[in-house]
Amino acid sequence: MLHDDEQLDDLQLNGLFLIQKKHGFRFGVDAVLLSDFAKDSPSRRTLDMCTGTGIVAILLSAKTSTPDICALEIQPGIADMARRSVEYNSLSERVHVTEGDLKDAVKIYGKGSFDKITCNPPYMKNNSAIKNESDSIAVSRHELLCTLEDVIRVSSELLIPKGRLCMVHRPSRLADILCLMRKYKIEPKRLRLVAPRPGKEPNLALIEGMYYGGEELRVMSQLYIFDENGNYSEETDRIYGRR
Amino acid sequence: MLHDDEQLDDLQLNGLFLIQKKHGFRFGVDAVLLSDFAKDSPSRRTLDMCTGTGIVAILLSAKTSTPDICALEIQPGIADMARRSVEYNSLSERVHVTEGDLKDAVKIYGKGSFDKITCNPPYMKNNSAIKNESDSIAVSRHELLCTLEDVIRVSSELLIPKGRLCMVHRPSRLADILCLMRKYKIEPKRLRLVAPRPGKEPNLALIEGMYYGGEELRVMSQLYIFDENGNYSEETDRIYGRR
Repeated sequence: MLHDDEQLDDLQLNGLFLIQKKHGFRFGVDAVLLSDFAKDSPSRRTLDMCTGTGIVAILLSAKTSTPDICALEIQPGIADMARRSVEYNSLSERVHVTEGDLKDAVKIYGKGSFDKITCNPPYMKNNSAIKNESDSIAVSRHELLCTLEDVIRVSSELLIPKGRLCMVHRPSRLADILCLMRKYKIEPKRLRLVAPRPGKEPNLALIEGMYYGGEELRVMSQLYIFDENGNYSEETDRIYGRR
Repeated sequence: MLHDDEQLDDLQLNGLFLIQKKHGFRFGVDAVLLSDFAKDSPSRRTLDMCTGTGIVAILLSAKTSTPDICALEIQPGIADMARRSVEYNSLSERVHVTEGDLKDAVKIYGKGSFDKITCNPPYMKNNSAIKNESDSIAVSRHELLCTLEDVIRVSSELLIPKGRLCMVHRPSRLADILCLMRKYKIEPKRLRLVAPRPGKEPNLALIEGMYYGGEELRVMSQLYIFDENGNYSEETDRIYGRR
């Protein structure tokens, strides 16, 4: 089940494992934070877009009781890794990986077919930096195959009214995100900024919008990954399941 | 110079004082934070809209070397207090109080006549809560005489290209603020959230936008008014000039 250039990583949660490349794009704290941020509201059917190796979908299977979790990934090799991880964890009845372009998601799943969508999209604009030499890593990091507007527009078509879109992104894109959400009737409802440690500027933003939600944004307390002494903060430990 | 229902408050900065009502709307930490947030970029001509008793304009006179600071207030009695505070502090050559409606500000000052605008507007939507019985306090707190969109639209007409609008508002209105700024070509450039103390949700947001600025929002480190022990934080002390 494991290719030569892959390894099996212990997710330290419910005995779950994830297949990842030894030297490719590997999931980071952003995926773990997104799954925690997105877990609270109940869902009958969730879609994780830009799922990559399936990390957010697999974590959500452990953190929620959602019976149907779909995961969409455009890169065939990566989608195959996600599918094998789902099999390895015996999650095939709850987690369904599809290889496809999110711009075709309405054709694949149907309009208004989800009450929750999660997405950890590429953070960098296509024109904003030199591309990484490895195509697969570049697709994960840069808006080569989908833009932020694609993610939000497609989400608005896939969500039922009052359905939620939960994203993680860079704080520098906050104006883009909030304005695009409004453009597509996904009202920003919750925002949580994440900084490496107290006194530092945030480098991640967790955002939840509700399709046809009422206007009122709740900005949550700031999350710090480390405390003043450089140890994981209590909340990071809780999110990683270490307390 | 002082009416019976007024008192003279020591601003603890450069020997400045402010005339305020004994039992009316009194300036809060938000005005002090706004003047500090807005002080860094140089300005030849600044306008403080919704100036009230003139607190932000008077603090800016001490915190910057801006030679021409205009202050606009719609309520005649409050504008008069601001004018007397300016006289009392011998600031009449630098700070100019005008009684008028900000919706007439382009007529009053002319298009593109400022490189910086500050505003501590009413926070509450007109329909969002029971109005205070006192008209003057209600005008300061609720969008009775001007809306957030008025503030931002008028600012876009008053600013020169690359001129800055600095506002303080509630975090719950963040989506409104960022989207309205974009609508009127004022690109959000700096955001700082302010929370009462570590672990608490922010209750103020400081936002700077630049008229025809480039797209890239810097989210600064979170500001806490008090520290974990309930004492003023070091940064609050610095902003209040106590260190």
